[in-house]
Amino acid sequence: MATTAGIVVIGDEILSGKFADENAAFLIGELRSLGVDLRRISVIPDDLDDIAATVTRDAARLDLVFTSGGVGPTHDDLTMAGIARGFGTTVVRHPVLEAKVRGYWGAALAEPNLRLADVPDGAELVYGKDQVWPVVAYRNVYILPGVPALFRRKFVDIRDRFRAEPVVAARLYVNGDEGDLAPHLDAVVAAFADVKLGSYPRFSEQDFRVLITLEGRDGARVAAALADLSARLGARVVRSEAPAAVGGPA
Amino acid sequence: MATTAGIVVIGDEILSGKFADENAAFLIGELRSLGVDLRRISVIPDDLDDIAATVTRDAARLDLVFTSGGVGPTHDDLTMAGIARGFGTTVVRHPVLEAKVRGYWGAALAEPNLRLADVPDGAELVYGKDQVWPVVAYRNVYILPGVPALFRRKFVDIRDRFRAEPVVAARLYVNGDEGDLAPHLDAVVAAFADVKLGSYPRFSEQDFRVLITLEGRDGARVAAALADLSARLGARVVRSEAPAAVGGPA
Repeated sequence: MATTAGIVVIGDEILSGKFADENAAFLIGELRSLGVDLRRISVIPDDLDDIAATVTRDAARLDLVFTSGGVGPTHDDLTMAGIARGFGTTVVRHPVLEAKVRGYWGAALAEPNLRLADVPDGAELVYGKDQVWPVVAYRNVYILPGVPALFRRKFVDIRDRFRAEPVVAARLYVNGDEGDLAPHLDAVVAAFADVKLGSYPRFSEQDFRVLITLEGRDGARVAAALADLSARLGARVVRSEAPAAVGGPA
Repeated sequence: MATTAGIVVIGDEILSGKFADENAAFLIGELRSLGVDLRRISVIPDDLDDIAATVTRDAARLDLVFTSGGVGPTHDDLTMAGIARGFGTTVVRHPVLEAKVRGYWGAALAEPNLRLADVPDGAELVYGKDQVWPVVAYRNVYILPGVPALFRRKFVDIRDRFRAEPVVAARLYVNGDEGDLAPHLDAVVAAFADVKLGSYPRFSEQDFRVLITLEGRDGARVAAALADLSARLGARVVRSEAPAAVGGPA
């Protein structure tokens, strides 16, 4: 079974276009190269009930959930409280994080900064190589900051624990109309239930009309599906990319 | 009451990183300038049950839902069937669309192309200036193609029907730590329930540390909240942007 994941981006600023999403876009590529099967991205407002409902729904259906944003000392930072509400627990001040916050700010500490030490009761601190500040996880939910540079740094620091079986992917670049290709695609889909086929019409390419992608966990099956489809499409195939593992050990 | 909206991007190709999302990113800016309050973006796989559940949940909670992708003649085009399933109806061949498909392909028509005429039973055809091909809508769900050039063209063609009261937005660029700012933000949030405040720490800017955004539908209230917060923050304010309507008539 593939490892499945969801991303929940929490932030009015994305929905209102003040900032473009960078974190989901980054994580798509990371999860892909880790072999993790991303099943859903949700972008939601700074709203307690929406955070609670969205995160718990994903956490129940998927192996891993990554949240982005809503972590900080101001009124619009609601992720910890939302996750706590969703799982029916409360927010508590974590003593290890509190010591880190007090150490960092020293005499300049303002009371709201201590909110950076607040986590859902029962949360775990996950360390990578960076011993300065861990990632907070609650069950299978990994809670990451919204500032893109921090999001990337924290994820990269802990990503190796998520490594799964790589995806093997192949491609066919094809001439012809999708309507003509459809019966051939249907035949291969029926014969190779473990290989996922995608068909994407392109209108601005010079030398092909449709990109067909094939992927799965079993390279031999992907290769067999590619050979079967190539034979069916014959001269319509302009070029192909042989099955290859995506990503792999960093 | 603001008009609310959700976007549902349907496509394995986005979740697996084969193509970067362009359609949600485009629609964020369009909805913002139309005054429509975007409340959720979901990116989901080519999966009937997931399409059914996600679209109907958004359609029940939000005024408008826009879907992207999953419309076409191949096995991975499941949007029409998913929406029909979600609303408890069936897919039927629409006679007006069938005539358009037959007229376009003529003698070269392949049977699967007729799937472009299949819609949930009871769907409406929505025309803008383009009389060639309408947008299919089912209740408050507008079903748009995934190819970005087509998505943009179809949305722009019908967007005027969605125009709502514009958002009025202002900004403060501030020095100081979010922890120090938090009590002042809390006071303004409490006094101006109809003005939404966002606080965004920035780490790579030369002349400020935190961007504070204020927005609402009532420009006078946004201006009053801006004045109140500016007075509270005093010399920490580096510069500000006065309240202004976002977007407006095209």
